[in-house]
Amino acid sequence: MARHTFVPNTYHTTIGQHKPVLHVMPGDSVSTTTVDARGFDQNDKQVADRGNPMTGPFFIDGAEPGDTLVVVFNRIRPNRTRGFTSPRIAPIVLDPGFAVTHADGVDHCDWDVDAASGSARLVEPRAQISRLALPIAPMIGCFGVAPPGGQAISTATSSTHGGNMDYRRFGEGITVYLPVFVPGALFHLGDGHAVQGDGEIVGTGIEISMDVTFTVDLIRGQTISWPRAETDEHLMTVGNARPLDQCVQHATTEMIKWLQNEYALDPLSTHSLLGQAVEYELGNMYDPAYTMVCKLQKSLVDAICADPRG
Amino acid sequence: MARHTFVPNTYHTTIGQHKPVLHVMPGDSVSTTTVDARGFDQNDKQVADRGNPMTGPFFIDGAEPGDTLVVVFNRIRPNRTRGFTSPRIAPIVLDPGFAVTHADGVDHCDWDVDAASGSARLVEPRAQISRLALPIAPMIGCFGVAPPGGQAISTATSSTHGGNMDYRRFGEGITVYLPVFVPGALFHLGDGHAVQGDGEIVGTGIEISMDVTFTVDLIRGQTISWPRAETDEHLMTVGNARPLDQCVQHATTEMIKWLQNEYALDPLSTHSLLGQAVEYELGNMYDPAYTMVCKLQKSLVDAICADPRG
Amino acid sequence: MARHTFVPNTYHTTIGQHKPVLHVMPGDSVSTTTVDARGFDQNDKQVADRGNPMTGPFFIDGAEPGDTLVVVFNRIRPNRTRGFTSPRIAPIVLDPGFAVTHADGVDHCDWDVDAASGSARLVEPRAQISRLALPIAPMIGCFGVAPPGGQAISTATSSTHGGNMDYRRFGEGITVYLPVFVPGALFHLGDGHAVQGDGEIVGTGIEISMDVTFTVDLIRGQTISWPRAETDEHLMTVGNARPLDQCVQHATTEMIKWLQNEYALDPLSTHSLLGQAVEYELGNMYDPAYTMVCKLQKSLVDAICADPRG
Amino acid sequence: MARHTFVPNTYHTTIGQHKPVLHVMPGDSVSTTTVDARGFDQNDKQVADRGNPMTGPFFIDGAEPGDTLVVVFNRIRPNRTRGFTSPRIAPIVLDPGFAVTHADGVDHCDWDVDAASGSARLVEPRAQISRLALPIAPMIGCFGVAPPGGQAISTATSSTHGGNMDYRRFGEGITVYLPVFVPGALFHLGDGHAVQGDGEIVGTGIEISMDVTFTVDLIRGQTISWPRAETDEHLMTVGNARPLDQCVQHATTEMIKWLQNEYALDPLSTHSLLGQAVEYELGNMYDPAYTMVCKLQKSLVDAICADPRG
Repeated sequence: MARHTFVPNTYHTTIGQHKPVLHVMPGDSVSTTTVDARGFDQNDKQVADRGNPMTGPFFIDGAEPGDTLVVVFNRIRPNRTRGFTSPRIAPIVLDPGFAVTHADGVDHCDWDVDAASGSARLVEPRAQISRLALPIAPMIGCFGVAPPGGQAISTATSSTHGGNMDYRRFGEGITVYLPVFVPGALFHLGDGHAVQGDGEIVGTGIEISMDVTFTVDLIRGQTISWPRAETDEHLMTVGNARPLDQCVQHATTEMIKWLQNEYALDPLSTHSLLGQAVEYELGNMYDPAYTMVCKLQKSLVDAICADPRG
Repeated sequence: MARHTFVPNTYHTTIGQHKPVLHVMPGDSVSTTTVDARGFDQNDKQVADRGNPMTGPFFIDGAEPGDTLVVVFNRIRPNRTRGFTSPRIAPIVLDPGFAVTHADGVDHCDWDVDAASGSARLVEPRAQISRLALPIAPMIGCFGVAPPGGQAISTATSSTHGGNMDYRRFGEGITVYLPVFVPGALFHLGDGHAVQGDGEIVGTGIEISMDVTFTVDLIRGQTISWPRAETDEHLMTVGNARPLDQCVQHATTEMIKWLQNEYALDPLSTHSLLGQAVEYELGNMYDPAYTMVCKLQKSLVDAICADPRG
Repeated sequence: MARHTFVPNTYHTTIGQHKPVLHVMPGDSVSTTTVDARGFDQNDKQVADRGNPMTGPFFIDGAEPGDTLVVVFNRIRPNRTRGFTSPRIAPIVLDPGFAVTHADGVDHCDWDVDAASGSARLVEPRAQISRLALPIAPMIGCFGVAPPGGQAISTATSSTHGGNMDYRRFGEGITVYLPVFVPGALFHLGDGHAVQGDGEIVGTGIEISMDVTFTVDLIRGQTISWPRAETDEHLMTVGNARPLDQCVQHATTEMIKWLQNEYALDPLSTHSLLGQAVEYELGNMYDPAYTMVCKLQKSLVDAICADPRG
Repeated sequence: MARHTFVPNTYHTTIGQHKPVLHVMPGDSVSTTTVDARGFDQNDKQVADRGNPMTGPFFIDGAEPGDTLVVVFNRIRPNRTRGFTSPRIAPIVLDPGFAVTHADGVDHCDWDVDAASGSARLVEPRAQISRLALPIAPMIGCFGVAPPGGQAISTATSSTHGGNMDYRRFGEGITVYLPVFVPGALFHLGDGHAVQGDGEIVGTGIEISMDVTFTVDLIRGQTISWPRAETDEHLMTVGNARPLDQCVQHATTEMIKWLQNEYALDPLSTHSLLGQAVEYELGNMYDPAYTMVCKLQKSLVDAICADPRG
């Protein structure tokens, strides 16, 4: 149960079998930092290439293909006061040919981020939105493990290994589960957002460097097909693909497997509970692979399964 | 501001230019009933064909093409105690070829719906879910106005005129806005659900007949492209299409028009606010046209627009 | 086996249960005319509303729901010399946000169509394409039967009943099969194109009025799910939906049913023949529903099935 | 203009920056071999892992990012007589939930491939298709160059760099153009098919090892966004993505760029020619990324552009 502090000095814009930066044991915690999507660190100094440079990878001792890696994001905090966003909603989320009006000559926006008060403000007095102190909710946009088959997958996209999912609930306190494809799992993380709307429809959240503390664990011999996550209130499964319909297919299938395999829910209860209580939320609808999340209230599952996971 | 009570005796499984059952004035309220998706009424007696039979249409005096019809759902209450669901998650929301397990020989499920206590219970003691008193949230699955061009659109699907959207927030208290395509608008409604998960992934909510009271109004000369809705907390715009990506495109485009035309929000604020604060929710992912809803917190808009709609 | 000549004077921009204009018997032929997509006839006079106005519907005596209507397009010939196209490729077939260059101020294009020589020429000397005598291949863009459930479906789109499929092979000599949903089938046709590229990506072929002769027949008791077609060389099945993936799913499923039900092909042969010999072609990728066609060479099927349809 | 003979002894199931196996100059030809999709060579001996193992990569001297690599497939011939296919059409190309019948207990099919006579026959006398001598048309299913950003992309999929496109026209005589992302381009090839239907809907063509001769060249300073190809008759552009709609968008956009940049076609001619003469064909509809190809007859372009590429 060691607590590691790790100061990164290399970064990767693919998730793959890169040289591990640190070996950790199941149960260990790591406090580290992430740079922003363009590679700028807590001092607003560029230390990595743009394109969601990742901190890591971290080698989890004992992790083997077929296991599940557990990561708890204990703490995610902006470690500087200046963030940025893109000023343009992506054409892909608008009607084809819709001539949306942009602000002339604005190519990115700066925000003052106040982690203490928990709000952010656009630094552009001519825009009405600069009147607004927008509540922040820090999150990690991109994280994952080395994918199978020797692939090195761009941090611009996502798949079964995780990646650039940009889901708002991947914030402080969440537990995420990732399938392990290679020995040591090789966990990468980065692309922090002070806050972000669903879909990341401008192509950015409020991009900012972060202090992050996370704890790892392993579920040996439990093989999952897609990332899962859990809070005190919800079970969540993640599908990364295009179009969104396919994300829903992956996420729903994974949720059924979870309920039937780990909770031993009978078929009629599985179909009926999801049918009348399932929720879906949108991660990224900007990258080559989009993200949709299937959610279910744990209180409902607990009311049904006398002895969950028993 | 008349209060009408209307007892239906004809129903339609298309939304189109059917003979109006009642003329109402802007500001009037109507108390009526809807039958369930299979045409059964409050006495569990079949009085209409299956396939989401609609009550109506109601002719709103003065409504002309290019106007916006406003409908407030004042009251939506199950008027019997027995509802039903389908016991099977639709293949369309699962991985192609995924062999999901079903309950043998179950072809529909009955639920005891207790509107007073606000819960429903599956009537099948062998299923674990029968232990659960599922909180209900009554809603109208299908409503809309006569579409343009002389079309009669099946109540199995949806489009710009509304239709079978199956969105959980279309419950008591919501205000909906619909584009008017024909004189009198011709408002239809039906397909009540005691409760429903996102996506209506089993193809039903808890299907039940309802007592419904609604109030109509007109915004003359305001032309919208897709249904809109509003609660005390949120603005919402609705896209109905396939795949879900296209729903998002329609809904987001409509939200931009709303913010720019009705709230006079400047371009940079429009992009930045939606980019960092937009939410999306899933209506139906079962019908020929799916539904996604774009949502925005009104408190954020109000904080930005000193004099909204001024 | 009567030969009818029918001069239309009403047109419909939905396909539905409109009043029949002529009763015909299986085996009968009809020679009639169609107006262009904007409602202009052989004299370039507007006689109908724009939006693919249909000639018909024709009532086929004896056709009952569950039968298959057979239509042979014996003759499709432009009956005037002036056609038109749209000058702009639709944004929906281009990369989102791609700033395609258009010809300034051109809002439609005229073409000289010479049916005798079989070619068409753009009437715009400043465009390089005016040097080209483009070979024509006249076709019917939109045809179909009244859909089920009392629907009236816009001629801007397509579904199981046919509709605006805009498939280049729907030309002279083809035999098409349509599911019958209502007594008399109610066959509509129109929207002739002198020629058209795959996808109808500018939203038009060379739109022109036509002389059309067609022959009808019935296959009683044979129920099909989607339109089928046949030439001397090919079997074809049609899927109409969005996205294109779903069109492929419908068309492929229908082809399997054809091979297994009408040709009694064994499962391994069905999978293996389609796997190594199937072809797909694109109809419309412009309308609310797109069209893809699954094709198979009849010579291959004949080589396998000693006694096809025996 | 050297002619190299290269005997491979390493293979890769990703396309990436692997160690080059041979350096070649623009103008050079290479005669080599490819193993089948499961890694079996001309002697039916497994020499590589399954999953489309690639021969190469070949380093093209002088190729720099921003150039275009030109590859002519001079010769593609099966070098053994036994091929195999999968016996099952993929669920992804069928209606969701459609219960297609399979041949019991058949898990792959053997074919006798006779390159001399140009035909193949299924080795399973109980299947009707074994009566058929299916004409073959040898092709390369998967080829491409190292992708940008340090990615290593699985040979199960495709993108801007090429990859597993499974397009039937990638056979003998075709010229392909690929964007160069890294010095030397790093050309990989493999996954030969004796023949294949559109879509590769069973997940295989007739998979077989091949003798391949190809010639490379460079177009320095010409940057393309997606693979292009050319025969005596056609220009072709390739889009690799999901859903098929997006493939069409990429391929059509690339064709417009080709016509406008390399042929200097004016805007109205570009839109009008594609609108009335474009063709689309389906590559793979089985992989994570599908493939659609935009085609245009060169005779039409030549008739318009007095001095093409002048």
